[in-house]
Amino acid sequence: MRDKYIKVRAQSEKLCHPLKAEDYVVQPIVDVSPPKWHLGHTTWFFEKMLLEPYQKDYQIYHPEYNYVFNSYYETVGKRVLRTNRGNLSRPTVDEVYEYRSYIDEQMAVFFTTRASLSPEEKKIIEIGLQHEQQHQELLLYDIKYILGTNPLFPSYLASTPSLSTPTQALDFLPIKEGIYTIGHQGNDFCFDNELGLHQVFLHDYQIANRLVTNAEYLEFIEDGGYQNFRFWYSEAWDWVQKENKTAPFHWHQIDGQWHQYTLHGLKPIDPNEPVSHVSQFEAAAFAQWKDMRLPTEFEWEVACRNYQPTIPDAANFVESENYKPMTKSSDNYQFYGDLWEWTQSAYHPYPYYKTAEGALGEYNGKFMINQMVLRGGSYATPKDHIRATYRNFFHPHLNWLFSGIRLAKHD
Amino acid sequence: MRDKYIKVRAQSEKLCHPLKAEDYVVQPIVDVSPPKWHLGHTTWFFEKMLLEPYQKDYQIYHPEYNYVFNSYYETVGKRVLRTNRGNLSRPTVDEVYEYRSYIDEQMAVFFTTRASLSPEEKKIIEIGLQHEQQHQELLLYDIKYILGTNPLFPSYLASTPSLSTPTQALDFLPIKEGIYTIGHQGNDFCFDNELGLHQVFLHDYQIANRLVTNAEYLEFIEDGGYQNFRFWYSEAWDWVQKENKTAPFHWHQIDGQWHQYTLHGLKPIDPNEPVSHVSQFEAAAFAQWKDMRLPTEFEWEVACRNYQPTIPDAANFVESENYKPMTKSSDNYQFYGDLWEWTQSAYHPYPYYKTAEGALGEYNGKFMINQMVLRGGSYATPKDHIRATYRNFFHPHLNWLFSGIRLAKHD
Amino acid sequence: MRDKYIKVRAQSEKLCHPLKAEDYVVQPIVDVSPPKWHLGHTTWFFEKMLLEPYQKDYQIYHPEYNYVFNSYYETVGKRVLRTNRGNLSRPTVDEVYEYRSYIDEQMAVFFTTRASLSPEEKKIIEIGLQHEQQHQELLLYDIKYILGTNPLFPSYLASTPSLSTPTQALDFLPIKEGIYTIGHQGNDFCFDNELGLHQVFLHDYQIANRLVTNAEYLEFIEDGGYQNFRFWYSEAWDWVQKENKTAPFHWHQIDGQWHQYTLHGLKPIDPNEPVSHVSQFEAAAFAQWKDMRLPTEFEWEVACRNYQPTIPDAANFVESENYKPMTKSSDNYQFYGDLWEWTQSAYHPYPYYKTAEGALGEYNGKFMINQMVLRGGSYATPKDHIRATYRNFFHPHLNWLFSGIRLAKHD
Amino acid sequence: MRDKYIKVRAQSEKLCHPLKAEDYVVQPIVDVSPPKWHLGHTTWFFEKMLLEPYQKDYQIYHPEYNYVFNSYYETVGKRVLRTNRGNLSRPTVDEVYEYRSYIDEQMAVFFTTRASLSPEEKKIIEIGLQHEQQHQELLLYDIKYILGTNPLFPSYLASTPSLSTPTQALDFLPIKEGIYTIGHQGNDFCFDNELGLHQVFLHDYQIANRLVTNAEYLEFIEDGGYQNFRFWYSEAWDWVQKENKTAPFHWHQIDGQWHQYTLHGLKPIDPNEPVSHVSQFEAAAFAQWKDMRLPTEFEWEVACRNYQPTIPDAANFVESENYKPMTKSSDNYQFYGDLWEWTQSAYHPYPYYKTAEGALGEYNGKFMINQMVLRGGSYATPKDHIRATYRNFFHPHLNWLFSGIRLAKHD
Repeated sequence: MRDKYIKVRAQSEKLCHPLKAEDYVVQPIVDVSPPKWHLGHTTWFFEKMLLEPYQKDYQIYHPEYNYVFNSYYETVGKRVLRTNRGNLSRPTVDEVYEYRSYIDEQMAVFFTTRASLSPEEKKIIEIGLQHEQQHQELLLYDIKYILGTNPLFPSYLASTPSLSTPTQALDFLPIKEGIYTIGHQGNDFCFDNELGLHQVFLHDYQIANRLVTNAEYLEFIEDGGYQNFRFWYSEAWDWVQKENKTAPFHWHQIDGQWHQYTLHGLKPIDPNEPVSHVSQFEAAAFAQWKDMRLPTEFEWEVACRNYQPTIPDAANFVESENYKPMTKSSDNYQFYGDLWEWTQSAYHPYPYYKTAEGALGEYNGKFMINQMVLRGGSYATPKDHIRATYRNFFHPHLNWLFSGIRLAKHD
Repeated sequence: MRDKYIKVRAQSEKLCHPLKAEDYVVQPIVDVSPPKWHLGHTTWFFEKMLLEPYQKDYQIYHPEYNYVFNSYYETVGKRVLRTNRGNLSRPTVDEVYEYRSYIDEQMAVFFTTRASLSPEEKKIIEIGLQHEQQHQELLLYDIKYILGTNPLFPSYLASTPSLSTPTQALDFLPIKEGIYTIGHQGNDFCFDNELGLHQVFLHDYQIANRLVTNAEYLEFIEDGGYQNFRFWYSEAWDWVQKENKTAPFHWHQIDGQWHQYTLHGLKPIDPNEPVSHVSQFEAAAFAQWKDMRLPTEFEWEVACRNYQPTIPDAANFVESENYKPMTKSSDNYQFYGDLWEWTQSAYHPYPYYKTAEGALGEYNGKFMINQMVLRGGSYATPKDHIRATYRNFFHPHLNWLFSGIRLAKHD
Repeated sequence: MRDKYIKVRAQSEKLCHPLKAEDYVVQPIVDVSPPKWHLGHTTWFFEKMLLEPYQKDYQIYHPEYNYVFNSYYETVGKRVLRTNRGNLSRPTVDEVYEYRSYIDEQMAVFFTTRASLSPEEKKIIEIGLQHEQQHQELLLYDIKYILGTNPLFPSYLASTPSLSTPTQALDFLPIKEGIYTIGHQGNDFCFDNELGLHQVFLHDYQIANRLVTNAEYLEFIEDGGYQNFRFWYSEAWDWVQKENKTAPFHWHQIDGQWHQYTLHGLKPIDPNEPVSHVSQFEAAAFAQWKDMRLPTEFEWEVACRNYQPTIPDAANFVESENYKPMTKSSDNYQFYGDLWEWTQSAYHPYPYYKTAEGALGEYNGKFMINQMVLRGGSYATPKDHIRATYRNFFHPHLNWLFSGIRLAKHD
Repeated sequence: MRDKYIKVRAQSEKLCHPLKAEDYVVQPIVDVSPPKWHLGHTTWFFEKMLLEPYQKDYQIYHPEYNYVFNSYYETVGKRVLRTNRGNLSRPTVDEVYEYRSYIDEQMAVFFTTRASLSPEEKKIIEIGLQHEQQHQELLLYDIKYILGTNPLFPSYLASTPSLSTPTQALDFLPIKEGIYTIGHQGNDFCFDNELGLHQVFLHDYQIANRLVTNAEYLEFIEDGGYQNFRFWYSEAWDWVQKENKTAPFHWHQIDGQWHQYTLHGLKPIDPNEPVSHVSQFEAAAFAQWKDMRLPTEFEWEVACRNYQPTIPDAANFVESENYKPMTKSSDNYQFYGDLWEWTQSAYHPYPYYKTAEGALGEYNGKFMINQMVLRGGSYATPKDHIRATYRNFFHPHLNWLFSGIRLAKHD
């Protein structure tokens, strides 16, 4: 566990390596947090949840950091309003890294001063690491937002992106009607929202063998998809009109040609690449235009387990270091990695779901309204973080995450 | 069908009978529409959807009324923004009633000039009447809002409310796990959102034998329910704090005693009466405080069909003319009438659901995001309007509707 | 004084005579008040300021009316928020008229039960009548707003408007530099903001012999006035862009021709008529485009007293019953009546100005920030209400009042 | 002139010396700009206004910097919205300093490649330097805002503040009634808003011999000044209630004692020091509570010229390096330096004022609405930047500037 701790903590800092000090500070929209806040908040989690209650004579690093780095835990006191994170120039980036070092040293002491960890301690560390991995993804979303909305369009990576190959034909994978089991089984880690193992009945359905590509999405754009209310939910149509939407987030039309801001900089749209940075509103409208629909989260989970029982080697996670979604390869249905896939399921508790006690009980349950489930992970997800049962969730109008579209239909 | 037309149309006007001209005009919040707008809009529906396309040489009543009385149908042209309905003093109430008379006369002509109605004509008239019945309910919500937020607290009804009887003990009705069929069967009318007959698997569960009462809800209030974030979704807690919520809508504390504005005027809280005017946020928080939950819409439908296969005579609908929720009586589980019951199900399409063509296709499908399902009808619902499969839906923070709480649990 | 009381009170009701009950109720924007609120508020003023403190054993008409009809007097208790006035359907129009009758009867008793009025009583009655005259003007602004923004464009008046005659050439009236006296002199009524008689030094200047006409303003529009930031204050330019302004309020382009909603209905623009419904932003931009400026309130007062020592018979006030601004006639420089004239003076206290004690002290002084002075009265002003020293004031972006433009320059 | 250029430019960088890179980036409210934006914008001014049009073959430094660093000049193209300045992490602080170096080198070339400067070139350089001096003041306001609203309350200065001495008794300086000349005379630099030399008539008045102190302002607070509407303009009272104001900006009550964030860190209130960080609303309310008033800008200018014909040595400017307002000393009436003094004059053009041609014409005139004049400079003002005729202006609710109160009265 100590090895995993060291590895996960190092990865957060690695992801921030290409940043300038200034990039760590800004918060262009409420959903984006400053990178230095992510680095501090994930560190605070170990201090507040583990070291403070469990490490004897633990000395708090700074009396104000609980206020500065708490995110939303009502149980553990007041916190900086989310909208104000980008107003805080202090603590500086260096001070945040010093805070990280201090906590890492204290964690080293924690690991070495006890023969073995109690189950409760193990659980907290595990959640702390899973939590930091989640923030690693958010870090990349937020960094991409910060750089991609800057008029200078600076690149995050100096390297040239990996080449795109022609994609495979869109095909549909059938699943037979029946009773299926949903939810996490086994003893390895999962979040509480995956628990409540239960059965669902599914009717016959078919699910796409890959993600929708940029070329396919461009057809929707060129067919007037963003100008025709018929494809959109009523709230989505209001959003399209209020925000003057004409394309996914990070798309820019330059001299009549569509470009996309990528972590490698501003590039012409790659037709073979899966379309990314779509909201659930856009994903659902695209499906409606195709006279199809998005899968439910249950359909997704059953299909994933059936057609991709283990994670394929070709799956494109953060360790692949592509930093972009890739074209489907022969043995990969893209259920895992590349892009989070919007479903048509609202994020609700499973039967038998129980909220955990204490501050950790605030982790998932309180968000189970007005959000939609996404499945499968993205090119920013650590490979050991994802599972077929993993439930991610965002409000349906959001599009700065690494999200994509998989189609489904009944016949 | 002509008889039903006459009956439904007369009922809308009967509901407005106690109003002063001024009460027809105002729109205190965006969700409330002026009563005269409801009267005009339901009339416009017949003109625009039936008379204009199907009645030969039909003469439109007024060229601007399509603009004034369209609600949200993008297919049929521009419309007054919902927020501006309360700014229109014209057409006057008398002019709206003249418009109703004109359309009713034209409908009489329509019925008499043809030997039989085509299936399409029948369907539109049926939807027009169902639509008007839905607006009859909204009329009562809106009238109650308009009068109940006026500092003079005028009564809608001069009569004394029917007496309240002691309620029956809270008990739970069990349902066995298994595959159940959901959705409308048979040939009588239903909305498209009830179609897509399909199966669901339900685990063992128990559902309350009646609605939660004011006395039970008061315990929640007095136990600090509105001051403790633990019972609330994160968005709900923001709502409680921003709106300074301490009780359901229409409740007022006067000299230390809770009162409720009712259609009979401002009255002390009746402990036996079902609690009403709760948002889904409040319903879910109450259930969380009880360590239970709300039923899913599937659990509700299965339990309703099992325990109340037909609508009981005691069911409290608009025809009962109680104009308030009633105490549970011996043979009535309150699935039907009294109050719409919040579920924990988001309003999503059933499998196989298809949006209808044309303007009527905008009726339901485009609202299938960010809303929650309610079931069973209320004391403002016409008895012939409701079914076990009927799906009502509202945003979870809304509380001016006639909504209540039924508890569920797994064991 | 009793005669004046009867006359002024009757005039308020006369102005409302053409209204339907519904027109009395709505409040389309925060600056507009429902006509029935004006009728109640001016009545409440006599009850609260005179009858309650000065009439022995006076019986308050209704305990809630102080809350409903107080406008902004902090001294006399809570009040309905200005934005909520249009949400109140009760008291009804009939009830408001009953309230007026009751107060008028009580005032008759008041006048008859005392041999003579005390100076304090006289002063309050005088202010009450002046106050009601001010609201008579607002009534017409607000009625015009309510009817003129309705998609049916109903007329306020059935009559045909008086004919327009060709206007006289624009000319400039010179004033020599020197020390001039500003403020009210004599013993007749004035508001406290006119007191603080004092001297100002004015340099040589010239002031227009009439108001700017629609034809002249159209040249500004057609020269791209609303598209060129150079003519506008920075805040004004933001307003133009945010509100998409292209013409004065109540102007509508129909089939390529400019129309204006008038109290006689929607009419083509009359080129000879003074331009009305301009904000101070528009007045100042027009003057800038002409390479001139607006007069200061001191320049206006001195020129008015010099060139029009008495109110000319041709002055167009509410008693003229034109209900619109008129073309300049030979002996009339239009200082009085027609339209309020925007100045370039902020509304500030005169030297020696003292706020009055008590509730009446809130009448003027507390508005002396961020507002601009207008002078001279309009076609909605009662003739006995206006003076050369009268200071009206509004925020510079407002344009629903009956406002116009007079140019000035230094050489 | 070249020496002045070097000196002024160096001073901007000196003021930023104590900052961390992160402090240069944030924009906590719309009125505050990121320090790196100030450094870039003042540099862009020389590039855009001088080098680009006047230096032959001048090579623009970066094609996007015109967009990034333009503030409000409509004449010279699009610009980053003021609210978005704090979202830009790039250009980095180092890159902004490189931009400064490049422009400074180009300016060196500019100075050396011509025998003498044309009048137009001289004028632009002069305005560019005055402009940079204005931004030096804003820099200190904004730095104080950024650090003073950070929960860690970091100090700007490591040094100990200079000691406070007991203040002198409040006294009043009389001015006799008469005609006085207002506006800039002579050939040295002034802004266009000081031109339009003209006469005003002033009545007898008296003006305070020093600024209001913290001790005096505390009496107002303790007398319930922030709880009593009578002292406030109506808009000011709304502001007090909406913002929950109970003290000037940067004041904090800690364990029952008032503290103030200063550039030396968080300190207990110094009773002898002039009260600072008051809005015009607060200044006017304080004066009203004292039964006095603020001076007009004309009264201020005449009194300043009369009682302090030359700037006293004791005047506290940025060169004094106190970085805080000081107690009045014997020969100093504090007209100059310490704190900008709110007047009761709206910022309007003087008679004969003409807007300059071209982009520089946007410098002052377009702000002449809804703002109030301040006079005299502050401890952040360069000594050679100020004059008795200098007109500063801000909206009356703003309080992050270095503003104070001087009382006036008529007798």
